[in-house]
Amino acid sequence: MTVFGWDSVAADGAARAGLLHTAHGDVETPVFMPVGTAATVKAMTADAVRSTGARIVLGNTYHLMLRPGAERVAALGGLHRFMDWPGPILTDSGGFQVMSLGKLRTLDAEGVTFRSHLDGTQYRLTPGRSIEIQHLLDSTITMVLDECTPFPATHAEAESSMELSMRWAARCRAAFQAREGYALFGIVQGSIFPDLREKSCMALTNIGFEGYAIGGLAVGEGQAAMFETLECTVPHLPENRPRYLMGVGTPDDLLGGVARGVDMFDCVMPTRAGRTGRAFTSRGILNMRNACHAQDPAPVDPACTCPACTKHSRAYLHHLFRCDEMLGPVLLTWHNLMYYQSLMRGMREAILDRRLQSFAEETRNGWKTDKEGKDVLF
Amino acid sequence: MTVFGWDSVAADGAARAGLLHTAHGDVETPVFMPVGTAATVKAMTADAVRSTGARIVLGNTYHLMLRPGAERVAALGGLHRFMDWPGPILTDSGGFQVMSLGKLRTLDAEGVTFRSHLDGTQYRLTPGRSIEIQHLLDSTITMVLDECTPFPATHAEAESSMELSMRWAARCRAAFQAREGYALFGIVQGSIFPDLREKSCMALTNIGFEGYAIGGLAVGEGQAAMFETLECTVPHLPENRPRYLMGVGTPDDLLGGVARGVDMFDCVMPTRAGRTGRAFTSRGILNMRNACHAQDPAPVDPACTCPACTKHSRAYLHHLFRCDEMLGPVLLTWHNLMYYQSLMRGMREAILDRRLQSFAEETRNGWKTDKEGKDVLF
Repeated sequence: MTVFGWDSVAADGAARAGLLHTAHGDVETPVFMPVGTAATVKAMTADAVRSTGARIVLGNTYHLMLRPGAERVAALGGLHRFMDWPGPILTDSGGFQVMSLGKLRTLDAEGVTFRSHLDGTQYRLTPGRSIEIQHLLDSTITMVLDECTPFPATHAEAESSMELSMRWAARCRAAFQAREGYALFGIVQGSIFPDLREKSCMALTNIGFEGYAIGGLAVGEGQAAMFETLECTVPHLPENRPRYLMGVGTPDDLLGGVARGVDMFDCVMPTRAGRTGRAFTSRGILNMRNACHAQDPAPVDPACTCPACTKHSRAYLHHLFRCDEMLGPVLLTWHNLMYYQSLMRGMREAILDRRLQSFAEETRNGWKTDKEGKDVLF
Repeated sequence: MTVFGWDSVAADGAARAGLLHTAHGDVETPVFMPVGTAATVKAMTADAVRSTGARIVLGNTYHLMLRPGAERVAALGGLHRFMDWPGPILTDSGGFQVMSLGKLRTLDAEGVTFRSHLDGTQYRLTPGRSIEIQHLLDSTITMVLDECTPFPATHAEAESSMELSMRWAARCRAAFQAREGYALFGIVQGSIFPDLREKSCMALTNIGFEGYAIGGLAVGEGQAAMFETLECTVPHLPENRPRYLMGVGTPDDLLGGVARGVDMFDCVMPTRAGRTGRAFTSRGILNMRNACHAQDPAPVDPACTCPACTKHSRAYLHHLFRCDEMLGPVLLTWHNLMYYQSLMRGMREAILDRRLQSFAEETRNGWKTDKEGKDVLF
């Protein structure tokens, strides 16, 4: 049996290249995890996801507890078998989506009561139930239930929210059934306040987790504040444990996150953008719906080896999106995931060679190359 | 260079196994051609289509002339390159869709004037323009422009409609530029009237085509009338040319069509059904949205080797359709195309072994096996 753990392979400044060991296989870090919300990375077969180089995906507890239900997934052999992903799966706690329900939810000291956005059915999510659901899903990496502190928050609000999350983290630790190669990750909160982030790190390391996530970022604070918060958080986390920046981000966010010592990322951005016709490329962000692509025989990204780029022109992708053909989202999601994976691989190789900074500069300069790339904002 | 042609390999009653030679490769017959309306077999990558065993696909002239336009496809290197399908492509003439536009079109002796269903732009389709468009698309098999006689029609209506189609067939033959390995197919009309079908066959064989399609069927006349019409049409077609039954059909229609001497078929049924949650299987037609599948760990079709059946449960497919996840249509289209291809392969092998009738009986009996299969009608 594999013991869950993370080994350092190389470092370049604060950036780390490493290897994550799990019950469902090893994963090279830094790593980007595609989001497979409802037991599917939207528009992609599991084989297609693997072909992009992805080795770990994320599942959403909130969506899966509503449909098809955690007990049903368990009866069908767990999430790995259900979605044809024998590799590692990280599940969130459900907290982030539930907290976003606004009037549909009520928070108390023990957990949160909410109504399904689908049919109004009432559910209750507590630290214990979140851990139980993730166990039923057979999640490789379970996340603690926390409150993602809204931004902006006063110091007092952020403190009380963080302290609630720390109490729940202890309950999650107690509820989690240890199994070889499986992990429970704690989540640092504290908004953009350095003292609260430090306190949160201390509280979590006192409990002890197999990995540490940094939550409550990418919620409107902006990239500069996010990076500053990383810089005052990461130094308080254990050297020998993986660090995961939740819900981040743009390719530029990934460059900055890795440079600041983050090992793991997840975000809907590459998949969501792919479904709406936007392509991340080595030469910038393109909108395939734009008329400038209608007659262009060039590939979306000449540097890319995905099926969209090796087999088709920009004109074809433009045509598919103009006709609302499903193959457009399929191909462009594939491309975007491939771009994200190759960016992570590039960063890992650069760390091994101690040239991450120049790699980041070259990558950022590349984004200004395409004539359309300059004008498209995300 | 390959000369276009069809060789008989074996016969079993009226049924034929053969080999079609084209500029873009050989195709075993009887063959089912998936429909790739707008330069994409909906929801499928070209690689996925190939993996089902398909070796020839169909493109729709009407859709392609509107978007992206035939001249644009030509400038981009032709339809094969545009859609990543180096194999043979058959294109229809555009007539069928244009005739279906109702008030948006006006038919005259020289052609048809119509307005795009997309933006109202006026277009004109004549025998010469239809052939030109299909040439620009670089279609391997070009179809003549005809009028698909509506059903029901009086004998007089069917006769005058058929005669118009025969005059247009001659114009198409004159307009078609012969190239090695490329073909022009004539289309038999005449509604369900044996004398008109015979006259139409004579008119077309007098002109001379590389293949003969049977049009004006599967338009409401019912399977019995369709089979009767095949029986009084096929004997008047040349033995040494491929025969193509347009727009047909259900798996049962394919069994009956092949038994009556048809070599080629196309239909949107497997792809359209796949997008709406219906599966063709060896045990009957299933609707994956039905609650009976919600907890079923069995594959959609235990006899199938497609990714939906080898990697996933009925419960997973049900979940995907309930959540409107794109992967549902992707996987079920894949499955249905695989089912159609394996049915055609089964028929070809049965013809080689002179046991087509027993193969058809076994196949039809199989469709009654699944407990849900009995109840679902198409």
